[in-house]
Amino acid sequence: MERVQLTDELSFSRIIHGMWRLADWKYSEQELLQLIEDCLEMGITTFDHADIYGDYTCEQIFGKALSLKPEWRDRMQLVTKCGIKPLSEKHPNTYIKHYDTSKEHILTAVDQSLSNLVTDRIDVLLIHRPDPFMDPEAVAEAFTLLRQAGKVLHFGVSNFTPVQVDMLSSYLDFPLVTNQIEVNVMNLEHFDNGNIEKCWEKRLRPMIWSPLAGGRIFHSEDPKAGRLRNTLEQIADDLGADGIDQVMYAWLLQHPLKMMPIVGSGKTERIRRAVKALELPLTRQQWFEIWTCAVGHDVP
Amino acid sequence: MERVQLTDELSFSRIIHGMWRLADWKYSEQELLQLIEDCLEMGITTFDHADIYGDYTCEQIFGKALSLKPEWRDRMQLVTKCGIKPLSEKHPNTYIKHYDTSKEHILTAVDQSLSNLVTDRIDVLLIHRPDPFMDPEAVAEAFTLLRQAGKVLHFGVSNFTPVQVDMLSSYLDFPLVTNQIEVNVMNLEHFDNGNIEKCWEKRLRPMIWSPLAGGRIFHSEDPKAGRLRNTLEQIADDLGADGIDQVMYAWLLQHPLKMMPIVGSGKTERIRRAVKALELPLTRQQWFEIWTCAVGHDVP
Amino acid sequence: MERVQLTDELSFSRIIHGMWRLADWKYSEQELLQLIEDCLEMGITTFDHADIYGDYTCEQIFGKALSLKPEWRDRMQLVTKCGIKPLSEKHPNTYIKHYDTSKEHILTAVDQSLSNLVTDRIDVLLIHRPDPFMDPEAVAEAFTLLRQAGKVLHFGVSNFTPVQVDMLSSYLDFPLVTNQIEVNVMNLEHFDNGNIEKCWEKRLRPMIWSPLAGGRIFHSEDPKAGRLRNTLEQIADDLGADGIDQVMYAWLLQHPLKMMPIVGSGKTERIRRAVKALELPLTRQQWFEIWTCAVGHDVP
Repeated sequence: MERVQLTDELSFSRIIHGMWRLADWKYSEQELLQLIEDCLEMGITTFDHADIYGDYTCEQIFGKALSLKPEWRDRMQLVTKCGIKPLSEKHPNTYIKHYDTSKEHILTAVDQSLSNLVTDRIDVLLIHRPDPFMDPEAVAEAFTLLRQAGKVLHFGVSNFTPVQVDMLSSYLDFPLVTNQIEVNVMNLEHFDNGNIEKCWEKRLRPMIWSPLAGGRIFHSEDPKAGRLRNTLEQIADDLGADGIDQVMYAWLLQHPLKMMPIVGSGKTERIRRAVKALELPLTRQQWFEIWTCAVGHDVP
Repeated sequence: MERVQLTDELSFSRIIHGMWRLADWKYSEQELLQLIEDCLEMGITTFDHADIYGDYTCEQIFGKALSLKPEWRDRMQLVTKCGIKPLSEKHPNTYIKHYDTSKEHILTAVDQSLSNLVTDRIDVLLIHRPDPFMDPEAVAEAFTLLRQAGKVLHFGVSNFTPVQVDMLSSYLDFPLVTNQIEVNVMNLEHFDNGNIEKCWEKRLRPMIWSPLAGGRIFHSEDPKAGRLRNTLEQIADDLGADGIDQVMYAWLLQHPLKMMPIVGSGKTERIRRAVKALELPLTRQQWFEIWTCAVGHDVP
Repeated sequence: MERVQLTDELSFSRIIHGMWRLADWKYSEQELLQLIEDCLEMGITTFDHADIYGDYTCEQIFGKALSLKPEWRDRMQLVTKCGIKPLSEKHPNTYIKHYDTSKEHILTAVDQSLSNLVTDRIDVLLIHRPDPFMDPEAVAEAFTLLRQAGKVLHFGVSNFTPVQVDMLSSYLDFPLVTNQIEVNVMNLEHFDNGNIEKCWEKRLRPMIWSPLAGGRIFHSEDPKAGRLRNTLEQIADDLGADGIDQVMYAWLLQHPLKMMPIVGSGKTERIRRAVKALELPLTRQQWFEIWTCAVGHDVP
C-alpha cells in the first residue's frame, strides 16, 4: 500500500485503522490478532488509539493481544491521544467533562498508554482536542521530556484550527507531524476554516476521522444525506464500485493533500473495501459532483 | 494617471479596464480599437480578461482588434485568468461546473490565451477562484514553467482568502503580485475575512471587481441599497460629483490600500466618470458615513 | 502583587485600574489621590486611560490630581489610547462617529494626552479600535516619531483581531506589547476568533476590559446570565469567596495566559475584592464548569 511520509523518519500507511470501537466488538485475543494480521497483510500498519477510547479500555485490549505477538510491534506505528477527561467510573474525581493538557497529566497519561499498549514507545502522541485552558509552555515541556526519554517519538494534534496549530508549533523545537480532523462528504468545515490550507502550508498530512460521516449518510432522512446518497450511488455505478462507502473513501483519497482516512471497522471485509477504494479512478469532475452536492450549489 | 507599483518591474494604472462583457457590446473592430485608444489616452493601460469571459470569446475579440495595432501591446498590461471550467457548448466534455488548477490545464489555458490575445506574453496570470481540489505543487510547477518560457511574467490570484494566499505563496519562489477581490459599498466581506489586512501585510495591491456592486444599487428595492443610495446622493451633492457611481469609485480610490477598481463599461463616457473620481476630495468622515450606512450601525 | 513582564523593560501589575468612569465619580482631588494611593499600596501600579473617556475629561482629572503628587509618577505605568472620534460638543466638526489613525491625529492626540495627564511620557499608547481606513505606514511613522521623541515608550492595540495584530506588527521595527480585549464569562469571542492563540504565539499578555461583563450578569434576566449566576454562586460558596465578582476575576486570573483584568471601580473596597481573587484556588474543573455553563454545552 502507498505510504505517506510524515517526516524523514516516519511514514504511515495511506489507510489507517482506528480502534475507538474495539471494546464494542467483544473480540477474543485470537480474533483481534487475526484482525491486526489482516490489516498488516493489506499494508495497513498504522493504528489509531486514544487513552479514553472504550471508557479507557481499548488501549489495554489491544496491548494484551499485541503482547502475544511482540515481533509485530516494529512493523506498525502506534498513535494515541490524551487531554480529554470525560466522566467515567474509573475516575470518580472527575465531576465534569473537561480538558487537561497540563504537564503532569500528559506525562501520566503517556506512562499509562505505554503500559496499556505493552510497548516501550508511542510513535505519535496527539493532543486530543484544543484546550481553551492550555498552557503551551507546559505542553512543550511535557513533549520535550517524553521525546528525550524516548517514550514518544513524534507529536501531533487533533481537531486544532490553523491558529492553534501555529500557536503550539511556536513553542516546540520540532514540527508537529499531523492534525487529525474530521472530513467527510457531510462535514466540509475544514475546507472553510482554513485547515486544509494550513496543512498544505505546513506540509502536514492530516489523519481523517469519521471518513464515512459516522454512517449516518446510509440511513438518515436528512435531505442533504439523501441527496448525497443519490449522487454517490450514481458515481458508484459509473465506477463499478462496491458501494457508496468506497466512493466516500475515494473522494478523500483522490484529494491531492494525501489525507489518511481512519477506518474504524472490526470486519476485515469492510476494511478491504476501503483499501480497494485506493484504486477507484474517481475523476476531477466526479469529485466536484460530490462537492457540489454536499455544499448544495454550483461552485461560484 | 496615477500608477500603482506591483513589483519593481510592474506597474498598473490606478484604474483598470475590464473586458468581461466585451462580447455583449457587439463592437466592430474599429469601435473596440476606439475604446482601447480612449482608455490609453486617459492613462488606463491595464486590461483585465479571463479565459472564460463571454463563453470563451472575449479574449479573442480583443486579440483580433489588438493585432491591428500591434504597437499598442507594449503600452498596456494584459491580465487574464484560468482555473474555472463552466458548462459551455465549446467544451461538451464538461458536464458540471468545476475548477481545474492542474498543471496540464494551466499550461493549456495559457497557450490558448496567448493565441486568443495575439500576444507573446501575459503580464499577470491569475488563478480565478480558490480550488478546494488544488494541488499547490502542481500550480507552482506550472507557474515556474510559464515564467521560464516567458509566457507569463507575473502571477496572482482572485477571490482568495488570507490563508489561501499564504498557502500558495509558500510553494512559490516569487511573490504573488495581486489578489483580485470584490469590494463595493454593498459587499464589505473582505474587510471582515482578513483580506484587507493580508494585502497590507504582504504589500499586495488588490484589483477590485464589481466596484459598483454590479449596478444593483441603482435600482434595487433592498432597504440597504435604498439607504446607501440616499447617503451616496447626499455626498455626491456635497462634492459636486456627477452621480453616485463616482462617489462609489471615490470611496474605493480614497482608501489608503491603493485599491485598483476594474471599470467594466464599454462606453468611454462612463469610463471617464470613473477617472474623474480620482479627483473627488472625499473626506475621512464622508468615507465613514458610507461605511456606517453600509454596515447599518455606528462604528463601535 | 504579581507583575507581568511585557518586555524586558516594562512590567504591569497583574491587576490594572481603569479610569473610564472617573468623571462619573465626581471625586475631589483628595478623594482621587486617596484612591490612587490605595491602588499603589495594593500593588496596582498600572492605570488605563483613553483620550475620549468621560467625553475627553478623565485624563485631565487624573493629571490634575497626579500633579499634586509628582513623585508618584515613577511608581506607575500610564496607558492611554487614541483613534476614536465620537460625537462631542468639544469637537463640533465631528458630525459622525468615526476613526482617525492618521499620523497627524495620533501625534496631536498624544500631545493632548501628555498635557492632560501632566506627564512627560506615556508608558503604553494603544490604537483604540481597528480602523478599516487605517494606513499602517502612517501609524508606523507616528509611532516611530513618538518613540524617538520619548513621548511614548511602548505601543499596543485594543480590540484587534489576529490578522490585524500581524498586519500592523509587520510595519513596525519594535513589537506591540499588548492587545486590550474584552473577555468575561458572558463574552468568549476571543477564544473563538483566534485572539487567545495569537497572544500566545506572539507572547503578548492581554489587558482585559469588562472583566465583570459590565455588571449585567448581576441583574440580567437573560437565561445565560441566570445560569452563570447560579454556577458562579455555587463555586463562590465552595471557595469561600466574597461574591461572584471574585469568581469572575479568578476565572480570568487562573488562565495561564496571564490576562490582566482592568478593574474600573472607584471604590477601594471593590478593588480590594479583585485583588483578593488572586488568591482564590479555582481548580481546572471549576474553570471548565464556568466555561461549560457559558458556552451552554459540555466540551466535545
